[in-house]
Amino acid sequence: MTNNERAAVLSQALPYIKAFRGKTVVVKYGGAAMINESLRAEVASDLALMSCVGIRAVLVHGGGPEIDAMLRRLGKEPKFVNGLRFTDDETMEVVQMVLAGKVNKDLVGLLGKAGCPAVGLCGVDGGLITARRHSKGEDLGLVGEIEAVNPDLLEAALKGGFLPVVATVAAGAEGEGAAHKAYNINADTAAAAIAVALKAEKLVLLTDVPGILRDVSDAGTLVRELPRSGVGAMIQEGVVTKGMIPKVECCAKAVGEGVGSAHIIDGRVPHSLLVELFTDAGIGTMIV
Amino acid sequence: MTNNERAAVLSQALPYIKAFRGKTVVVKYGGAAMINESLRAEVASDLALMSCVGIRAVLVHGGGPEIDAMLRRLGKEPKFVNGLRFTDDETMEVVQMVLAGKVNKDLVGLLGKAGCPAVGLCGVDGGLITARRHSKGEDLGLVGEIEAVNPDLLEAALKGGFLPVVATVAAGAEGEGAAHKAYNINADTAAAAIAVALKAEKLVLLTDVPGILRDVSDAGTLVRELPRSGVGAMIQEGVVTKGMIPKVECCAKAVGEGVGSAHIIDGRVPHSLLVELFTDAGIGTMIV
Amino acid sequence: MTNNERAAVLSQALPYIKAFRGKTVVVKYGGAAMINESLRAEVASDLALMSCVGIRAVLVHGGGPEIDAMLRRLGKEPKFVNGLRFTDDETMEVVQMVLAGKVNKDLVGLLGKAGCPAVGLCGVDGGLITARRHSKGEDLGLVGEIEAVNPDLLEAALKGGFLPVVATVAAGAEGEGAAHKAYNINADTAAAAIAVALKAEKLVLLTDVPGILRDVSDAGTLVRELPRSGVGAMIQEGVVTKGMIPKVECCAKAVGEGVGSAHIIDGRVPHSLLVELFTDAGIGTMIV
Amino acid sequence: MTNNERAAVLSQALPYIKAFRGKTVVVKYGGAAMINESLRAEVASDLALMSCVGIRAVLVHGGGPEIDAMLRRLGKEPKFVNGLRFTDDETMEVVQMVLAGKVNKDLVGLLGKAGCPAVGLCGVDGGLITARRHSKGEDLGLVGEIEAVNPDLLEAALKGGFLPVVATVAAGAEGEGAAHKAYNINADTAAAAIAVALKAEKLVLLTDVPGILRDVSDAGTLVRELPRSGVGAMIQEGVVTKGMIPKVECCAKAVGEGVGSAHIIDGRVPHSLLVELFTDAGIGTMIV
Amino acid sequence: MTNNERAAVLSQALPYIKAFRGKTVVVKYGGAAMINESLRAEVASDLALMSCVGIRAVLVHGGGPEIDAMLRRLGKEPKFVNGLRFTDDETMEVVQMVLAGKVNKDLVGLLGKAGCPAVGLCGVDGGLITARRHSKGEDLGLVGEIEAVNPDLLEAALKGGFLPVVATVAAGAEGEGAAHKAYNINADTAAAAIAVALKAEKLVLLTDVPGILRDVSDAGTLVRELPRSGVGAMIQEGVVTKGMIPKVECCAKAVGEGVGSAHIIDGRVPHSLLVELFTDAGIGTMIV
Amino acid sequence: MTNNERAAVLSQALPYIKAFRGKTVVVKYGGAAMINESLRAEVASDLALMSCVGIRAVLVHGGGPEIDAMLRRLGKEPKFVNGLRFTDDETMEVVQMVLAGKVNKDLVGLLGKAGCPAVGLCGVDGGLITARRHSKGEDLGLVGEIEAVNPDLLEAALKGGFLPVVATVAAGAEGEGAAHKAYNINADTAAAAIAVALKAEKLVLLTDVPGILRDVSDAGTLVRELPRSGVGAMIQEGVVTKGMIPKVECCAKAVGEGVGSAHIIDGRVPHSLLVELFTDAGIGTMIV
Repeated sequence: MTNNERAAVLSQALPYIKAFRGKTVVVKYGGAAMINESLRAEVASDLALMSCVGIRAVLVHGGGPEIDAMLRRLGKEPKFVNGLRFTDDETMEVVQMVLAGKVNKDLVGLLGKAGCPAVGLCGVDGGLITARRHSKGEDLGLVGEIEAVNPDLLEAALKGGFLPVVATVAAGAEGEGAAHKAYNINADTAAAAIAVALKAEKLVLLTDVPGILRDVSDAGTLVRELPRSGVGAMIQEGVVTKGMIPKVECCAKAVGEGVGSAHIIDGRVPHSLLVELFTDAGIGTMIV
Repeated sequence: MTNNERAAVLSQALPYIKAFRGKTVVVKYGGAAMINESLRAEVASDLALMSCVGIRAVLVHGGGPEIDAMLRRLGKEPKFVNGLRFTDDETMEVVQMVLAGKVNKDLVGLLGKAGCPAVGLCGVDGGLITARRHSKGEDLGLVGEIEAVNPDLLEAALKGGFLPVVATVAAGAEGEGAAHKAYNINADTAAAAIAVALKAEKLVLLTDVPGILRDVSDAGTLVRELPRSGVGAMIQEGVVTKGMIPKVECCAKAVGEGVGSAHIIDGRVPHSLLVELFTDAGIGTMIV
Repeated sequence: MTNNERAAVLSQALPYIKAFRGKTVVVKYGGAAMINESLRAEVASDLALMSCVGIRAVLVHGGGPEIDAMLRRLGKEPKFVNGLRFTDDETMEVVQMVLAGKVNKDLVGLLGKAGCPAVGLCGVDGGLITARRHSKGEDLGLVGEIEAVNPDLLEAALKGGFLPVVATVAAGAEGEGAAHKAYNINADTAAAAIAVALKAEKLVLLTDVPGILRDVSDAGTLVRELPRSGVGAMIQEGVVTKGMIPKVECCAKAVGEGVGSAHIIDGRVPHSLLVELFTDAGIGTMIV
Repeated sequence: MTNNERAAVLSQALPYIKAFRGKTVVVKYGGAAMINESLRAEVASDLALMSCVGIRAVLVHGGGPEIDAMLRRLGKEPKFVNGLRFTDDETMEVVQMVLAGKVNKDLVGLLGKAGCPAVGLCGVDGGLITARRHSKGEDLGLVGEIEAVNPDLLEAALKGGFLPVVATVAAGAEGEGAAHKAYNINADTAAAAIAVALKAEKLVLLTDVPGILRDVSDAGTLVRELPRSGVGAMIQEGVVTKGMIPKVECCAKAVGEGVGSAHIIDGRVPHSLLVELFTDAGIGTMIV
Repeated sequence: MTNNERAAVLSQALPYIKAFRGKTVVVKYGGAAMINESLRAEVASDLALMSCVGIRAVLVHGGGPEIDAMLRRLGKEPKFVNGLRFTDDETMEVVQMVLAGKVNKDLVGLLGKAGCPAVGLCGVDGGLITARRHSKGEDLGLVGEIEAVNPDLLEAALKGGFLPVVATVAAGAEGEGAAHKAYNINADTAAAAIAVALKAEKLVLLTDVPGILRDVSDAGTLVRELPRSGVGAMIQEGVVTKGMIPKVECCAKAVGEGVGSAHIIDGRVPHSLLVELFTDAGIGTMIV
Repeated sequence: MTNNERAAVLSQALPYIKAFRGKTVVVKYGGAAMINESLRAEVASDLALMSCVGIRAVLVHGGGPEIDAMLRRLGKEPKFVNGLRFTDDETMEVVQMVLAGKVNKDLVGLLGKAGCPAVGLCGVDGGLITARRHSKGEDLGLVGEIEAVNPDLLEAALKGGFLPVVATVAAGAEGEGAAHKAYNINADTAAAAIAVALKAEKLVLLTDVPGILRDVSDAGTLVRELPRSGVGAMIQEGVVTKGMIPKVECCAKAVGEGVGSAHIIDGRVPHSLLVELFTDAGIGTMIV
């Protein structure tokens, strides 16, 4: 690369760096991209860079595969109902330990190595996320629906210069069945709720797909931008299907409640966060 | 109780409340007292009260019994060398998950229920505690010796109004064998190092004994106050023995490095923290 | 008392200490309770404790008996019209000297000895209270009706960590008959006006009675709580009579203008302030 | 006066106004000048102007004549020993009432009318001045020698925008004979001690004389400037005599302990404070 | 002058100094008064005094004669259309150099010598003034009409303790014909726009006339005060004529947009600023 | 360029952006690079980017060619003595006008267009640079040697978010021959003195050469890093010659007085500032 090219990249990044300084960006991280060691290090490095230029970044993560693995080591087969994990008490204990004790702290460690002081939190910390028992359809055990997000602890961490990494375990709302103190919650929904509570500029879902494709077999049919109001039609037309539906709906909801824009981008592409934020190129689908 | 008696307690508490406002008190919590559900709730309530009257309280905890239980559920017998846990990679993973993901967050939840916003941290968060591999004697695997405590994250949490709860897992110092990111460290030592780094007024070890007893079978022989310089003699005379030796030495070291005073008190006595801090009675042994 | 009982008192005090931190409590002090040396010291000690736990306490006091005594030493018989002191120029000079120079500074001294830095003020200081000549009914000389309370000086004192002690002498409103610079004002009314100006959480009148009694000869008939709207009926029914009427009306007015609650409690009961504020027991009558 | 002359005065005042902004000037006010109603109003107006242009002014006052008058009204003849008031308990009560309750608050009222928010304090407030019983020579009762000045309350008042007016009554140092809470102290000495505690730029004694005169009958022999070291010679030569000796010595002491300069000026000359501070002319004697 | 007279001036100045502290006064300076070396030094001294007593003073200046002189030195005859300078590109270069490089920095130097740290700015600095090409009537080249005033830089300078001196050169509004970066703008209009943007207390035009005279040959017919609404009539009646019309209209407009009052005073009278601001006398015409 | 390459540039920039945040970088700009319109716009853009990422950038500039041109337009031939401009009064007037009025404000305008609010200053503003008449060797007229740099105005501008652009004209030190208010000073020296006064991290001289070359005809012989102590030898060996000598000496002096490092880089290379600061490549010679 020539110095001129280097300068071109830096110069192009300028208006973005300027526009995002002091703004909040909530990144949801999960799935396959999270398993790959080298991708994880790159995501950590990207988040560190974002922090460096004054973006208030928050990382929200799940960790399904790690939970499954630990359950199996304990001799317990993971069980799902309509795609949601059936969470009995023993499972919940494992969910909390694995998410808040292992995945979360490992991500904090990676960020630290990338030069970015981070702090690992879950919904129980500082009353960050409270939930009540999932009430629709079949009994799912300790699967929770988010009742409230209290952003005070996130603000304190950000103000102190620490990037918050949030494991999606919620505290039981008060008065609740009492015996249980934690709920298993959906990570996309949690990220969206946190983005709303922090009045974030952007919500970014790092996924295993390039974004919304009109033709799933043709990367050239990527929908670059989608108004919130167009989401319904996309689903009815069958363009958005299956696991993508809740992701897109949760993006639309976040934007509807005040988040600047929501992005579904491909976490498997190296440094997709940087490219999305700091270059004219952009990648993935943006919901506005 | 009469109003007069109530007023007497409150009046007596006055000079203590005044003296401790804005001061830092680091409490190490562990052992049997920690297993008992109702004692745990009382310790949480006491810490909440301390916070309420402006004390900057920090809770440091281990969790040996929970670790042992989880290891056994995973089919692995806990192994100790000279009283220290032999910590191979698999054990370390469990130590981290159990301490930082289960015991830690459960304590945070209890504090939250007691009306005290808390935040669960471990040494990996914000570079709080870094350690290097234990170097004396036999190989213990990932048992670490503390190299440095960076109190920035604790200060940010305290400033934000959150009581830090610290699980004793440390980040590996940089340059380190690389493969490992976390070390198992001693909770008493960690509490002492944190107290020193925060220039704490008090270090309180909540233990399973009433303090130092000249005659272990006679509670009336409690040593109420012990100068730091007298610790050596106590050990030589055989008054302080076995598991008590490292505790007393670590108290003496903390006081020698600037902590106001160190206390070994009986965590099995209900509300021993409150009584120690806010009444003329006091309990346990104070090292000054 | 056992340690458990001590802890119980402290634990019970917790939610109150928490709820009142940073809140303003205006205490009116007068009458018989003020004469008794040992009660005065206890009130000072209670106020010091309140300050200690972060309550912004303000003490407002009169001093009728001391004024009478000084007038008599000067060979002048105190004179009252419908319970209000007839205040000619010479009397006013004595009122000001005795309240602002003697009673006020003696209370400040007591608070100082109790470890609570206080500052003695009257309405003339910093334009704190301005009054105009009492206009209803018979001429009372320099008896004043409060026109305005400027809380700036109180705020500066509280911010600086000093408990304000206010003698109920007011500055003449500008343009006023000119010759006179000070007015004699009612202490209950002054305390209520100060509570309103400071948006106080509580107004507490320390009196010589246990509160409002349905049957004055039976302490068991104490009215514990009374809605502001119920005050009129209480007076019509003859439950509230004589000197109690203006006290109750002034409580109702303060609550109507934004003070959280007003309390009439028995200043002759030792530490009644502490018991009222920090225990579930409470004492006296609360108007809400 | 022409506009040119007006502008000349304002222009000349410029470097002084600039030099004194944010500086502390302690003014001692007493004697005959204080009796004259119109001079009092002018002094108040001058202090208000000083405040206006950002000078941190503090007024310290005595009030001998008013004390004498009140003692006599109470049928008690004032008694002096070597020029110092013999202060038995009854006298002390009158001293406190008259100084802190009457003279002090009247000055505060005058300053208020001049548009300058002031606050009336005495040594008892906020532990401002503590004293111990005068120990040299004959017993003088409750005459005190200053032990310490705590300037915190003065700083809080000045920061809040209030000019402190200090009556020279001191709190008894702790441990003291207990029965007594206040002492009668010398106003010049108190002003000097306050100037030292506040690291004042200037100490100004408003007196009944034009300054130090070499020939007391010839105003032309005024000593305009006197180095601190020259004070002893002046006394030995008999230039400084009688009541002037303690004033001059107390100026010299203040300068020796860090006050920028001390001034003895004629309080009977209208607006002598303004002329001294803001014109090249200056008046009186300056000790440097 | 006697000390009494000196004190009278200072005392009279008190309410004004108090009223103007922290208030913004924008002074437009130009014309003949600006040529005279000694008047310039006096204006600088007056502004320094204003700054000294806490007035946020801003100086706006033109410099027609200096521009004419430089143009002629470059062999170019100044050209005017309806009293407005025809400003071709070459002229604009000279306007900018002379105003922003010479007149401006010379005034800053004078203020510095008067003890007042100043900073020389023009409309290009910090986007202070943006303009678009003058659009009414004949083509005037780079004569600009003010589009916006951004007071951020002025606020930063004032906050830092520096008196802003503004040369009336404006930056071209964005999108503009591109080639040109600066416009020549009218100094009265610029001063008025700056006064509005800063929510100034006063706008003062230092001119070559005593103010509005009903009879131009009789200084006794000076109109001391004129309501904004009376300006139209004054012009229709022919009292305000020629070059005075835009000045008066621009004063009226400023007052209409929130400036406290606008003053047309005689810059040839020594210290006219001081007299106008700080004495009861006042001078010139005030539009309210 | 691929996204991967883009990300690589951004990632590489990370440690630099982080290291320089909040640090001060003084850039001296002059010579041929400054004449070229497009290079000027690129320098402005680079400085804007530096500001964007939190670097406290200060631009110092000369403008010899423009001064020469204006002198010639005024019919005056530029005159040099030993490479220094002979500066009579008329020349000084032109130097000030051209530097502070034209070159300076044009650069400010360019920065503004690049989205970076800037403020154009010279040494006269806020007493920024004071100088005395050049005293060595032949008389050079108003050529000045820097006596002091007062960074207060620069700090106020930087704090307010404005990039200071400094024209190298100095105010005459007080007491000076009086007639003259400004001096012509060397831009490299001024930049170095400003860097020292601001305790800058870096001083960067944007020149017309690639840095120090061992063989002037071979770009491959660039000296990348040179310890301050090695400068003397380089001159003696004849590696550093002619116009380069004062530049190198002034870099060495700045580093000796506390500046982190000094850089001589090629201003003709597009975006050389960005490449120097934010890439591993670096360019030019660094003196440490």
